[in-house]
Amino acid sequence: MLKGVQEITNALGADAVTTDDDDIDVHSYSEVSTSHCAAKPVAVVMPKSTEEVALIARICSRYKIPMVPFAGGSSVEGNFTAPYSGLSIDFSQMNQIVAFHEEDMDVVVQPGVNWVDLNDSIKHSGLWLPMDPSPTVMRYGTMKDWVVNLTVVLADGSIIKTRHRPRKSSAGYNLTGLFAGSEGTLGMITEIALKLAPIPEERSVAVATFPSVRDAVACASKVMRQSVQIAAVELLDEVQMGVINKNGGSGGRKWEEKPTLLFKFSGTTQSIAADIAKVERISSQGGGSAFEFTKTEQDMHNFWSARKEAVWAMCAQRPEGTQIWSTDVAVPLSRMPEIIDLSKKESEALGLFSSVLGHVGDGNFHQAVMYDPESPTQTQAVQECVRKMVHRAIEMEGTVSGEHGIGLGKKECLIEELGQHTISVMRTLKRSLDPHFLMNPGKIFDP
Amino acid sequence: MLKGVQEITNALGADAVTTDDDDIDVHSYSEVSTSHCAAKPVAVVMPKSTEEVALIARICSRYKIPMVPFAGGSSVEGNFTAPYSGLSIDFSQMNQIVAFHEEDMDVVVQPGVNWVDLNDSIKHSGLWLPMDPSPTVMRYGTMKDWVVNLTVVLADGSIIKTRHRPRKSSAGYNLTGLFAGSEGTLGMITEIALKLAPIPEERSVAVATFPSVRDAVACASKVMRQSVQIAAVELLDEVQMGVINKNGGSGGRKWEEKPTLLFKFSGTTQSIAADIAKVERISSQGGGSAFEFTKTEQDMHNFWSARKEAVWAMCAQRPEGTQIWSTDVAVPLSRMPEIIDLSKKESEALGLFSSVLGHVGDGNFHQAVMYDPESPTQTQAVQECVRKMVHRAIEMEGTVSGEHGIGLGKKECLIEELGQHTISVMRTLKRSLDPHFLMNPGKIFDP
Repeated sequence: MLKGVQEITNALGADAVTTDDDDIDVHSYSEVSTSHCAAKPVAVVMPKSTEEVALIARICSRYKIPMVPFAGGSSVEGNFTAPYSGLSIDFSQMNQIVAFHEEDMDVVVQPGVNWVDLNDSIKHSGLWLPMDPSPTVMRYGTMKDWVVNLTVVLADGSIIKTRHRPRKSSAGYNLTGLFAGSEGTLGMITEIALKLAPIPEERSVAVATFPSVRDAVACASKVMRQSVQIAAVELLDEVQMGVINKNGGSGGRKWEEKPTLLFKFSGTTQSIAADIAKVERISSQGGGSAFEFTKTEQDMHNFWSARKEAVWAMCAQRPEGTQIWSTDVAVPLSRMPEIIDLSKKESEALGLFSSVLGHVGDGNFHQAVMYDPESPTQTQAVQECVRKMVHRAIEMEGTVSGEHGIGLGKKECLIEELGQHTISVMRTLKRSLDPHFLMNPGKIFDP
Repeated sequence: MLKGVQEITNALGADAVTTDDDDIDVHSYSEVSTSHCAAKPVAVVMPKSTEEVALIARICSRYKIPMVPFAGGSSVEGNFTAPYSGLSIDFSQMNQIVAFHEEDMDVVVQPGVNWVDLNDSIKHSGLWLPMDPSPTVMRYGTMKDWVVNLTVVLADGSIIKTRHRPRKSSAGYNLTGLFAGSEGTLGMITEIALKLAPIPEERSVAVATFPSVRDAVACASKVMRQSVQIAAVELLDEVQMGVINKNGGSGGRKWEEKPTLLFKFSGTTQSIAADIAKVERISSQGGGSAFEFTKTEQDMHNFWSARKEAVWAMCAQRPEGTQIWSTDVAVPLSRMPEIIDLSKKESEALGLFSSVLGHVGDGNFHQAVMYDPESPTQTQAVQECVRKMVHRAIEMEGTVSGEHGIGLGKKECLIEELGQHTISVMRTLKRSLDPHFLMNPGKIFDP
């Protein structure tokens, strides 16, 4: 392994490689993630181009060194850990917008580009990547729906482009869809062409509180069944609203500590007014109260910040020494009230403090549970809580992960969800492209 | 091969298998398709369930018999031909709605279900599959975006489900996306879960004519850059409008024989009114005239029928003995006027009669060229015309097929588009799942 690292250092320069303990720690562990492993990468490499990534892959392939891609480091299922050691390949230096095709409404970026920065820098064009991960799924779909093509470096160092740059294609296998979301286990993505959308003329946010989570979800379902152009509908439970209040923010506003729906509207002035009126009617029929919509940009920012701050508020408000176990599942729409209800009761029964945040439009929700990692009782309790939630999602024909992926942490659950036959198809595909299991090995499924 | 057919007949019953010459002809040749081959299937099998398909695959696998799926028979690139002979597996008997989950806004269907019948039978729920293939792509995306999961029979007869039934998932590889659009070369799809959308409160259609195709496309681009909620925008050139006039229909209406845009709006009464006003303004600024929108259901039907009848009008109006070569490409949005212009000029220069129909929202268009297949000059001319159009699309970073797929007819072009490296990744994936090349062999790429 060290020989390989030396060769890479010779080729890319000393600046591009580090074996410093602190650097390695940052690339092997994250407080946000709950899946860890004892092994660490031997070095961190920071390529600057597709060609450098290909060169790294060729050397790693020759010395059989595992390659573990690292981008934002925000994953929570141990997706960027190195259970078989190897190299951590950090894409933070590949943060350029490669090409902006305004007239084609697309943009080509390197993997280290942050979506907020991207939208800032193309704002003048009236276009944006409509990802406010992940609440905007309802109107705009998920990230993968915006990917036009990918440049991928394979295990052996060969470079492929999944397809050209038209917005629609039926030219052969959908390799774009296969590599996107494969968690670096099939290849390393070095360039992404993304579709863009026009920035809506106007936006507004509305908020409504409900006597119960069940009522809130029922209201959201009714709204979805009408053709109202909501961009997002987010559920925050009473615990989450309490945490946000305690944490301050939201422009000093105190929220009612009840199950709450936040609606995001986008469109024209007229269409938004009509949509808000419709949602208000549905909400009040469904037991909703305190319906309020924003009238100014500042209001909108304050309202929506409650949603954006949710995770950080939980982190900030947790007692010293405790950690947060964050997990997500998705179920068919009709099962959402039931699974949230049961999951909340279960964590209470186990004596755990937890909050719920749901992307109601696609049956996906997150539970954040506080626990003391030093306490075996609490650690066991939180594991039990997650295990039951995941198991229940599967029983409801749902998935063990709507957003977070599988990584190290959910491999067992994935087998339960899909069965050995389907996993074995995934393994066959993996083996065909990466026969020596060098690409992020140990993630999604075992070799 | 005949031994295998006999075993299948024994297992499924004589009714499920035919070796009748007429039946075999229907399953090996279509007038609409321009890619043919001399070989034919030895028999046509009509399974009734996933289990029967699995049984067929197990027997075919044992006797190394190619399996060629056949559904609507509407493909134009020879996608259902049998160049290596084998079995034609006809899914017309698998035409059941397996489950309709109204509250989850999804439906599970067998592959023989027609989307018009599906929408008719679930209409009472206020839900629909928003596919008016393919003009509605702009608002609703393509078919693949509506697929939740697939049940697939693999070459060896094993049955897998690509995933469960939540609307969002990040559970392992996106097998749904890999199998959808693989033209039966990786497995046979026997069940499909589909998302549904609420039927819009109101719909309307507007029409505008332009001095040139360039002006029409420029207007469509401007509309797309605003956040107008158009469901579709379709371009029909002056030739196409003339053909529709000649063919009658459209409620007796005579159209102006100029490049024409048809807009489809959906939403609420208020939002549609606002959208129409906006589109009218953009259209008149861009040289559009005769802007007119529909006020009644009957009008809407008549307007839109011009679009729906386009292909059939071409077929009906063609002189005795001629055929239609229909092909499609897609390019980045900004290149659309140029490629349409050049393609029209080229076919004229070659002395061919051709019409253009474009899904302007995604840079995708179809050219339908009339030719006499008995005339070597005309056949060569049409081939030349298609070759140049495809080649030009590739040069513009476009694709050789936006919708029709590759089949037999566009294998060469696909290599030119994607390069040997990318094709070789597709081939590797294919080989890993179908080592004996039994699943629709000879399509998309050669073994």
